[in-house]
Amino acid sequence: MLSFESDYTVGAHERVLEALVRTNSEVLSGYGNDIHTENAKKLIKKACGAQNSEVFFLVGGTQTNKTVIATCLRQGEAVIAPKTGHISLHEAGAIEYTGHKVIELGAKEGKLDADEVEIYLETFYGDENNSMMVLPRMIYISHPTEYGTLYSKSELTHLRSICDRYGMKLFLDGARLGYGLMSRRTDVTLPDIAALCHVFYIGGTKVGALCGEAVVFAEGETPERFFSLTKQHGAMLAKGRLIGVQFEELFRDGLYFKISKNAIDRAEELRQLFASKGYRFFIDSPTNQQFIVLNTEQMERIKKGCAFSFWEKLDAEHTVVRFATGFHTSKEDIEALGKII
Amino acid sequence: MLSFESDYTVGAHERVLEALVRTNSEVLSGYGNDIHTENAKKLIKKACGAQNSEVFFLVGGTQTNKTVIATCLRQGEAVIAPKTGHISLHEAGAIEYTGHKVIELGAKEGKLDADEVEIYLETFYGDENNSMMVLPRMIYISHPTEYGTLYSKSELTHLRSICDRYGMKLFLDGARLGYGLMSRRTDVTLPDIAALCHVFYIGGTKVGALCGEAVVFAEGETPERFFSLTKQHGAMLAKGRLIGVQFEELFRDGLYFKISKNAIDRAEELRQLFASKGYRFFIDSPTNQQFIVLNTEQMERIKKGCAFSFWEKLDAEHTVVRFATGFHTSKEDIEALGKII
Amino acid sequence: MLSFESDYTVGAHERVLEALVRTNSEVLSGYGNDIHTENAKKLIKKACGAQNSEVFFLVGGTQTNKTVIATCLRQGEAVIAPKTGHISLHEAGAIEYTGHKVIELGAKEGKLDADEVEIYLETFYGDENNSMMVLPRMIYISHPTEYGTLYSKSELTHLRSICDRYGMKLFLDGARLGYGLMSRRTDVTLPDIAALCHVFYIGGTKVGALCGEAVVFAEGETPERFFSLTKQHGAMLAKGRLIGVQFEELFRDGLYFKISKNAIDRAEELRQLFASKGYRFFIDSPTNQQFIVLNTEQMERIKKGCAFSFWEKLDAEHTVVRFATGFHTSKEDIEALGKII
Amino acid sequence: MLSFESDYTVGAHERVLEALVRTNSEVLSGYGNDIHTENAKKLIKKACGAQNSEVFFLVGGTQTNKTVIATCLRQGEAVIAPKTGHISLHEAGAIEYTGHKVIELGAKEGKLDADEVEIYLETFYGDENNSMMVLPRMIYISHPTEYGTLYSKSELTHLRSICDRYGMKLFLDGARLGYGLMSRRTDVTLPDIAALCHVFYIGGTKVGALCGEAVVFAEGETPERFFSLTKQHGAMLAKGRLIGVQFEELFRDGLYFKISKNAIDRAEELRQLFASKGYRFFIDSPTNQQFIVLNTEQMERIKKGCAFSFWEKLDAEHTVVRFATGFHTSKEDIEALGKII
Repeated sequence: MLSFESDYTVGAHERVLEALVRTNSEVLSGYGNDIHTENAKKLIKKACGAQNSEVFFLVGGTQTNKTVIATCLRQGEAVIAPKTGHISLHEAGAIEYTGHKVIELGAKEGKLDADEVEIYLETFYGDENNSMMVLPRMIYISHPTEYGTLYSKSELTHLRSICDRYGMKLFLDGARLGYGLMSRRTDVTLPDIAALCHVFYIGGTKVGALCGEAVVFAEGETPERFFSLTKQHGAMLAKGRLIGVQFEELFRDGLYFKISKNAIDRAEELRQLFASKGYRFFIDSPTNQQFIVLNTEQMERIKKGCAFSFWEKLDAEHTVVRFATGFHTSKEDIEALGKII
Repeated sequence: MLSFESDYTVGAHERVLEALVRTNSEVLSGYGNDIHTENAKKLIKKACGAQNSEVFFLVGGTQTNKTVIATCLRQGEAVIAPKTGHISLHEAGAIEYTGHKVIELGAKEGKLDADEVEIYLETFYGDENNSMMVLPRMIYISHPTEYGTLYSKSELTHLRSICDRYGMKLFLDGARLGYGLMSRRTDVTLPDIAALCHVFYIGGTKVGALCGEAVVFAEGETPERFFSLTKQHGAMLAKGRLIGVQFEELFRDGLYFKISKNAIDRAEELRQLFASKGYRFFIDSPTNQQFIVLNTEQMERIKKGCAFSFWEKLDAEHTVVRFATGFHTSKEDIEALGKII
Repeated sequence: MLSFESDYTVGAHERVLEALVRTNSEVLSGYGNDIHTENAKKLIKKACGAQNSEVFFLVGGTQTNKTVIATCLRQGEAVIAPKTGHISLHEAGAIEYTGHKVIELGAKEGKLDADEVEIYLETFYGDENNSMMVLPRMIYISHPTEYGTLYSKSELTHLRSICDRYGMKLFLDGARLGYGLMSRRTDVTLPDIAALCHVFYIGGTKVGALCGEAVVFAEGETPERFFSLTKQHGAMLAKGRLIGVQFEELFRDGLYFKISKNAIDRAEELRQLFASKGYRFFIDSPTNQQFIVLNTEQMERIKKGCAFSFWEKLDAEHTVVRFATGFHTSKEDIEALGKII
Repeated sequence: MLSFESDYTVGAHERVLEALVRTNSEVLSGYGNDIHTENAKKLIKKACGAQNSEVFFLVGGTQTNKTVIATCLRQGEAVIAPKTGHISLHEAGAIEYTGHKVIELGAKEGKLDADEVEIYLETFYGDENNSMMVLPRMIYISHPTEYGTLYSKSELTHLRSICDRYGMKLFLDGARLGYGLMSRRTDVTLPDIAALCHVFYIGGTKVGALCGEAVVFAEGETPERFFSLTKQHGAMLAKGRLIGVQFEELFRDGLYFKISKNAIDRAEELRQLFASKGYRFFIDSPTNQQFIVLNTEQMERIKKGCAFSFWEKLDAEHTVVRFATGFHTSKEDIEALGKII
């Protein structure tokens, strides 16, 4: 059956899989001490235009979020995140399990509201009893957000300046970064992100890999013993090659961007399709996740021919659902969808 | 100088201190295995009308909150609290440090909004992906709240019924419980609280003791090995007698209630005093904490003769401040205040 | 270059890789809610002769150890392990990071000494102050151990009986379980292990998979919300299929045992080879890891033609090294080794 | 009944209690922001001969150990302690609960064996795979130890030099420090300890106070936001004055040393008493804790007239017990004991 359920419902891009097959019998040291991992790191630094950054490969998104946050913060320090952020809602409390509070501030279409952040920080630093409170030391954002939206370059710059003013780190969750970078409505490049964030990651799992995320620390920002600590957090693989080989292939000649672009092109077609038939959008998303409002009749009808994700109940009659495209979505898939909706 | 800064600025009530002096040379086992602690537990159970409850003495309020929450919850479970709750804001992240998320919901004058709790729980249980979220298993409220307000008996009953419906525990932080019980505007008794809460505590530190809180678990609700776990949480004293002796005196013949009543009587006088002079109240508090709105001129003037607490900035010209009475506040103090404001 | 460095230096067994290729374009739900994962679970239960057990797939060994231990224990409870156990030494403190003490007892050739366990428990339960100590609630063993040795069926039965007597759980780390089961010198079968352990895992990473371990809980032993908690611990993959597909192939027709047997056959040949040339064994290992004592000259010479692992310095002149075979080791590899040593 | 059960079975020294009574009605800010706490800090720095050190008052011994260790270490770092150390055995796993491993090394009569520490560190730093292990960053010792023994100045100097060589901190648990300093067989002074340790504490609870320990950080060694973090750990009191006033009195004119000397004098008399009657000592302790070996008959007989502590079973017929003197032990107590044993 046709599926727009999510961007991680099929395996890896065929070239990524081929790379795994091709390198399978090579004898390589464990834990990422291998030539492919090394090469993948170089390719990523180059794509970021950040030769002095440091790159690590971790097993998945939640693992990366908790490892980065818990190692960048010290005891008693907290991370500010939008209410709708992945770490706020959908990581089963993994951040708090590391002992750190997530300070949840308001979100507009999934994006952290910088003004609200500033008010929070001004109030915090104006309170003489703030030694009884957690110390905000990091801002977490996802880009694209959980609602498919994107920060503009000026918004990222603003958040970074807030971080600089208050001694905080800017951490960008790029689980779907490719789709953000290839959006037709963005002014943000990978080097921009590398320059503006203290740490961010380039998602593999949702962009053509079987698993794996590439964490990039700006120069001098890598926490002490970060490699060891990924083990404590469950973010390390014995056969580290599994991630290294995949990212090497994804960044060898721009495959990561090419397949992200495919998802964006299909998403734009999908958007026009729904728009042309008068469907209502819950949000104006410039990336691979499209949020549509369906009434009960539409819901039941479309469900029969196509899988998608439930997002939230809007009212008795209407539901927000998500259609996601991916590296694997074809023009034929969009055409088939056209016949159903 | 006159002080209404808080209810913990003087030592212990003189009778409490005398009890410490009187028992000082008795040879007693450590960790609360002594006759005074035993007796204090009996007196408290009797006052609660709950012979089958279990009572433990812990060293302070934050210690009690974190020990109770962390031992009642299992990994991956969370506590719902109002945004303005002590555990949400002013315990330096002590709850999250135990690995548990505090789900902060809206507060009205410091009180948790039961409707918002119900909506949260309905949404949670209606979401098929809630296995990726923390499981709400406890409701935390303070009574009186951080704003001096009180829950009615029907409100407590409502919260308890929500807990029963969703398999949650109701935990009441009674750091200032005496002031709530002796308020002229409450229909809630100590036995009511003992009957409605799975666990609550009777605050000593802010009600006439040097330190110590009495945790009361309803029958069958004490977590396994609770005594041992208080050690992990830093809530245990080697000389447990220090708390046992104080609570024995406080509950021997109703001293706890008598001194709480003194604070309430003085607070009412203070309230009338401010009202009579046309001051504006930020909140209508029926307990020992009174929140007044001062303009800059008033602020500067009163500050010279009397200590009070800054609460929050209202606007450029106005500030919310807190005046707190306590077991030690005298009629003379109120009269002196009258001359200043 | 010839390599006996470890059992995780090459990718996956070719049939495992083929299964990944074959299923790659199938549209499957995430987090292990897919048909291959379901099927793999059935196959494993069948191989274990334990239809009422529950099977979960976690990403790696350390993740599995910490998730199982932290979810089976409650706060203040501890796990007993041999000093040389993987969780005692080589998991970067991942167990303690979850808040639980590892009580390290003596080991004989990598195996926990049951007598020492009994003495420890008798002392503990005989101590009236043991409420100030952690409560031992689990025994952790690895099988094969980190020294390649194996527990006999009667030894496992003894450990289980200790667990039953003291209300403890028996947890067996089977990161290399296949090699233990196919050893020529074992009387322990997979159904024996399933019957004797409260929980154990069947290692994939070191036995032919790219990643993944299959945790098996005996009937009624699965911790509440275990699936959710694997997320907190970093043990969950979004594309859960990656592990499900691999285990489905490994257990479809006994591939797991067949490739384990290959490693054992090669290890026996390797052992005879070293023995025939008069080398000294540090330990008499019946599995795929062989520990040889080399003098400096041998060390330097062999190193040139073949990779192996440093284990420990024995004295100024001698070093213990490890040669490991795996699913991929061929008769030709052993012959080539013969020419080098 | 006569009691030598422990050094915390009576309340506070009478002068300490009087100080609490005397200051009881003073209006003082909470959390240790008061003049007595300030003064106590000055007196302690002076007694330590360390004007640039920083002093904090925490509520009890376990709280102090876990707060100091958890705030001085970073994630993935561990503390080395003797097997018989308080943090190894009798703090209910409070250290591990903060996420840090206690590396338990051998102990001789309660003292950490420096040679064993060096071997451990050499092995650790010689192991190329030590990134999979916890990083030893602190040495914990107690002085006097749990067996009443003392480190010599040269032993402390040796431990400090090991710390300096390996980038570790030396932390001395002085829960019974007074008894160590006033021992007739010590060459270690309080300024020595202040000079040799990165951090240590001066115990109040077991040396004449109702509660409270004074933590002393050498210049530059205080962890960032230490005050706030004591709250997370449950080591802070709202009425901080309770500890400040007691330590002010204890250090005003050498009371701490005077009462410690009393305990030592009585312990020497007790020792001679047992020796003169031919009793066997388990250990030769130069401080207030004396460990005697009793046979069953002696055990039963003495128990009737005098309380003491069970320590450990030696064999079927013999038991090690502890007699502890304290600030309150009188010559009459020793004489009375003489009639019983």
